[in-house]
Amino acid sequence: MSDARVLHVVSLLGSLRKGSFNAMLARTLPALAPPDMTITPAPSIGNLPLYNADLQAEGFPPAVTALAGAMAAADGVIIVTPEYNYSIPGGLKNAIDWVSRLSPQPFSGKPVALASASPGGLGGARSQYHLRQVMVFLEAYVLNRPEVMVPAVQTKVDAAKGEITDGPTREMIAAELKAFAAFIRRLS
Amino acid sequence: MSDARVLHVVSLLGSLRKGSFNAMLARTLPALAPPDMTITPAPSIGNLPLYNADLQAEGFPPAVTALAGAMAAADGVIIVTPEYNYSIPGGLKNAIDWVSRLSPQPFSGKPVALASASPGGLGGARSQYHLRQVMVFLEAYVLNRPEVMVPAVQTKVDAAKGEITDGPTREMIAAELKAFAAFIRRLS
Amino acid sequence: MSDARVLHVVSLLGSLRKGSFNAMLARTLPALAPPDMTITPAPSIGNLPLYNADLQAEGFPPAVTALAGAMAAADGVIIVTPEYNYSIPGGLKNAIDWVSRLSPQPFSGKPVALASASPGGLGGARSQYHLRQVMVFLEAYVLNRPEVMVPAVQTKVDAAKGEITDGPTREMIAAELKAFAAFIRRLS
Amino acid sequence: MSDARVLHVVSLLGSLRKGSFNAMLARTLPALAPPDMTITPAPSIGNLPLYNADLQAEGFPPAVTALAGAMAAADGVIIVTPEYNYSIPGGLKNAIDWVSRLSPQPFSGKPVALASASPGGLGGARSQYHLRQVMVFLEAYVLNRPEVMVPAVQTKVDAAKGEITDGPTREMIAAELKAFAAFIRRLS
Repeated sequence: MSDARVLHVVSLLGSLRKGSFNAMLARTLPALAPPDMTITPAPSIGNLPLYNADLQAEGFPPAVTALAGAMAAADGVIIVTPEYNYSIPGGLKNAIDWVSRLSPQPFSGKPVALASASPGGLGGARSQYHLRQVMVFLEAYVLNRPEVMVPAVQTKVDAAKGEITDGPTREMIAAELKAFAAFIRRLS
Repeated sequence: MSDARVLHVVSLLGSLRKGSFNAMLARTLPALAPPDMTITPAPSIGNLPLYNADLQAEGFPPAVTALAGAMAAADGVIIVTPEYNYSIPGGLKNAIDWVSRLSPQPFSGKPVALASASPGGLGGARSQYHLRQVMVFLEAYVLNRPEVMVPAVQTKVDAAKGEITDGPTREMIAAELKAFAAFIRRLS
Repeated sequence: MSDARVLHVVSLLGSLRKGSFNAMLARTLPALAPPDMTITPAPSIGNLPLYNADLQAEGFPPAVTALAGAMAAADGVIIVTPEYNYSIPGGLKNAIDWVSRLSPQPFSGKPVALASASPGGLGGARSQYHLRQVMVFLEAYVLNRPEVMVPAVQTKVDAAKGEITDGPTREMIAAELKAFAAFIRRLS
Repeated sequence: MSDARVLHVVSLLGSLRKGSFNAMLARTLPALAPPDMTITPAPSIGNLPLYNADLQAEGFPPAVTALAGAMAAADGVIIVTPEYNYSIPGGLKNAIDWVSRLSPQPFSGKPVALASASPGGLGGARSQYHLRQVMVFLEAYVLNRPEVMVPAVQTKVDAAKGEITDGPTREMIAAELKAFAAFIRRLS
């Protein structure tokens, strides 16, 4: 039965700093995934050069093709990202810009879920709505709800453990991952 | 009389490729500025590393402080950029993310105008609306109209000369720059 | 075979004036639908009062339940709308606000496509991106592409006939409707 | 001295229900305004018909001209509104659509501030960013920050009194109004 197969999801992280709260959010995902879903990190976006079509003409950097390959091999992608200046972090957008030039383009037809965390009150909401518009062009299918936007994230983590420990936040994440599994199956 | 002084504007370019249509748009600006405005290019965004708070902790890269310094010294900034994947190019957003961490933050209270060009039909409109949201956080003042969004830009340039040559487009640009001069004076 | 059944789509019109270009666009749809899709107009949004929760407490107006009923009975909804002041027309948003309070909520899980026309250069693009954000909350599934945004619509109609007559625009519409049929089947 | 004159601001309310939390927010404004600012309610948006260009051709409804007149006579407008379905309430957008057709158009060149409240966690943020895009077209000048977005508003009011009573929220409102006064003076 096709519905019995395990879904392989990769998480794409939008922050580069070591102590990133969004890295903690990404590390929290695998344990909260439903039994029929695995979640592994996609390669880092930190080794990509700034997108430049002249550079692309010389050949895609290996860090780009590695990232795109991991995405292409997955049943779905969950983007975990902070919000920078009311929008998508430049580094994350740069990674998206690079992989968008590949053919096949790895977001095309791919189920995508979003999650974000911030010290402030909106939990990264503004970056998510901008990402949703990007995904229209890239023809990804983005899960509507539940939306995981974690405000005041610094109060909801165990920094030593490097994970989200707040109970209601963990339940919200688990609910999103469960909905994402159903969404992936609906689209396949 | 303070209104007699010349306004110094810098153009911030969102594309890195040599043959960029938006670079042509940026090169077209100085000759179309009103007599009381000069426009010079800001340092390139191409030499910035990807933003990383750990890197920032070691000190701001010289390319960041040079860019911010040019902006801070100007009476206004005109951002000239393509649209990538229905939003702001990652490289441009990365530059904005870097300078946004400086204190004083160079966009704060600064008059800003936007211009974009694209081969497609919308002329980069979607990148401009995302930039406007970014500027809310950064407390810049963004000129409302006229909006310079150049569709089908490849038909409106002299590639050898490296400039926009289409008459109506040049008039629209001149109208924006004139309105920008009035806007800067109104805010100062 | 379930894929053989005909898909019933309703068009929801965002303009109220008699000579509306978007009404012409809506009237153009049925003839361009693929063989396995019918398109009929949803009841007008013009007879709804302004949304007011106190009014709702007295019972939903019949014009609201009629509209929601038509949507609920359909396999998909195509929203055809002008852009007013860079966003969704108030009248259309008002209709959406009304039906959104019903239970079951008729947009929930519903495939939705968007089409817009304007005399200006962007063809209503800005209203579509705002509608997409609304649909996230309402848990509709919105077709990504092709996007039907018809600029300079006054040059592309036969006003006497009340339809879009421009060839490339008609092809773009037909392509969207074909993609919408596939999208509906994929989701069902 | 022109800076000594009192600034007259009108509040434009986006909700129609009697017990509206945003009505409470609007009622809270006058007492928190700085000494050099008065705030009075603009006429209700509740008596406007749905915008229809055919209706406009017969003459603007008195409720439209009354609203526009109050705005035109004011030094600034503060829009106080809930968020409906992740965007601007239809009724508020309808009022904006009506007044936008008048000449002179009352938002043109007008300083505008935004405030919103919601029972949920984002405090109406999404409606504010859509309103900001609308204001680009209408050539209003919108205050950047502080942004007043009141989440969990039901815990921050005295419903009998019909006002916001939460201390930190009142301070945030007072800070916005003070910044708005400075913004109006800067633009005039």
